[in-house]
Amino acid sequence: VADSPSESPGFAERLSQRVDARESQLVLGLDPHPERLWPDALAAAPAHGGPTERAAGAITAHCDALIDAAGGSCVAVKLQLACFERLGAAGWKAMAAVGARAREAGLLVIADGKRGDIDISATAYAEALMGATSTPFGPVPGLAADAATVNPLLGRDALAPFLDVAGRAGSGLFVLVRTSNPGAADLQDLRTSDGRAVWEHIAALVADAASGTSASATGLSHVGAVVGATAPEHVGRMRELMPRAVFLLPGIGAQGGRVEDLAPAFAPGPAGGLITASRSIADAHLGEGAGEPAAAAREVAERLRSVAWALSQG
Amino acid sequence: VADSPSESPGFAERLSQRVDARESQLVLGLDPHPERLWPDALAAAPAHGGPTERAAGAITAHCDALIDAAGGSCVAVKLQLACFERLGAAGWKAMAAVGARAREAGLLVIADGKRGDIDISATAYAEALMGATSTPFGPVPGLAADAATVNPLLGRDALAPFLDVAGRAGSGLFVLVRTSNPGAADLQDLRTSDGRAVWEHIAALVADAASGTSASATGLSHVGAVVGATAPEHVGRMRELMPRAVFLLPGIGAQGGRVEDLAPAFAPGPAGGLITASRSIADAHLGEGAGEPAAAAREVAERLRSVAWALSQG
Repeated sequence: VADSPSESPGFAERLSQRVDARESQLVLGLDPHPERLWPDALAAAPAHGGPTERAAGAITAHCDALIDAAGGSCVAVKLQLACFERLGAAGWKAMAAVGARAREAGLLVIADGKRGDIDISATAYAEALMGATSTPFGPVPGLAADAATVNPLLGRDALAPFLDVAGRAGSGLFVLVRTSNPGAADLQDLRTSDGRAVWEHIAALVADAASGTSASATGLSHVGAVVGATAPEHVGRMRELMPRAVFLLPGIGAQGGRVEDLAPAFAPGPAGGLITASRSIADAHLGEGAGEPAAAAREVAERLRSVAWALSQG
Repeated sequence: VADSPSESPGFAERLSQRVDARESQLVLGLDPHPERLWPDALAAAPAHGGPTERAAGAITAHCDALIDAAGGSCVAVKLQLACFERLGAAGWKAMAAVGARAREAGLLVIADGKRGDIDISATAYAEALMGATSTPFGPVPGLAADAATVNPLLGRDALAPFLDVAGRAGSGLFVLVRTSNPGAADLQDLRTSDGRAVWEHIAALVADAASGTSASATGLSHVGAVVGATAPEHVGRMRELMPRAVFLLPGIGAQGGRVEDLAPAFAPGPAGGLITASRSIADAHLGEGAGEPAAAAREVAERLRSVAWALSQG
């Protein structure tokens, strides 16, 4: 197996298999807020206990219902770690449960924590999400995510521990290269003295990291990139700079990006680009005449899946 | 109160009071690894239960012992979130307990998670660490940290929710401006077309954010900066760019930085710079003839405190 020293297929292979089998590049973003849950999820919260436990129960029910409704059109879920850790220990427990539910539904799990640190701290983050921690009492398993998002601001030696742990676990990484928000212009778009933007330097770090690994049979690396779908003019250049990276593409829907603008993402094959959608699916029922939450979510997810798949088939 | 709309003193005031009262700028870094704990802490782990619970008990005992040994020479602890979340829900519970122990010992709590995201996710991170989450079941309190570290790669609109939540909570922020690791050169030191380094642009974002708040009586802002002590040649320039920011200075000891090089940090007053030390304190007993862990930690911490304080007194 090319992507990983382990026996099981590496991230790029697992992803390609799922994309082909499900004819989908859609990633279901799970970023539950206790004040914006589906009514049935709220009703499913434990009737007793403190606010923390009740809210944790409610967000778990909400995510489970979303997976049941829209998961069939998706290849993966993306857990927004912030939305779970705001509930502390109970939230981490909920996150692990939701991850397990997604796996049971045949979905890959992407831990979207945008972590970034150095040395032992970077190793600890990577082991928390994709590996295990050795202790004198035996190993403590982490979240067992198939992939994690990483912030590269601290540079090459900060990425290295994530690459190590992901490589050993057969997991993938998505490095923030150019994000989907307006503030991406403040630092990522700065022009450097050699004429390149900062994000192009980050893309070079990603390509370097990918070239240090042997290509999988899919032609894709397990080192991918987060590429905001709101700046489609960059996607072609990204593909030049990172020919083997899987692109994780947020910003469709609520943030204004359009699936149709993302064709270069799929140049290396149908698994070359993943479209993430969160609120456009979870809040689909809030649109005029949209029906009840699960049906509305299923419909929007299926529409996004179908548009992206058609685009990837060129 | 200048720094915060709440009635209690804001972060800059609380910090200044503690620095003066304790004659210390030392921050005790808590980044426990279950394989590198003080022997007494290991012995204090629960005798029964799974590896996760036993490891969580052991790291809690280790951190508590460190606080007892070295806390008297410090103004704050810095919780390395990675080292707790690697133990999942049990680790988050341990982190909250260690934070509470630190507060009982009269120490401020800095949550070192280097979080960075946009929009609702940034708000969720900020509420997890410094605020509370509103839920239909009542508010869920966060970690109640006095300050948190933040990664600015996503730009101004990603910092805004952290500033909002911190402002309302009377908490502080430390924005990564120039970190202490070699890889800081890869992106943070890139020269941009206007002649400034990327880190100087980040410093300008920090100064802007600080100027949006009214100065506290201390002359310091609640918006601070992480400034690696391993690049002392930058510290003077940092102070020019961010005249009111508290500098959080990692990299002393294990990473090679020297307290003596950091004089410009203290230009606005004794609370203008905070020296963080983790392994140089926790592992002090591993040095030749250093004695048992607690005594060795206490001695190193007291020496660092005394050097920094003397320097800040000019």
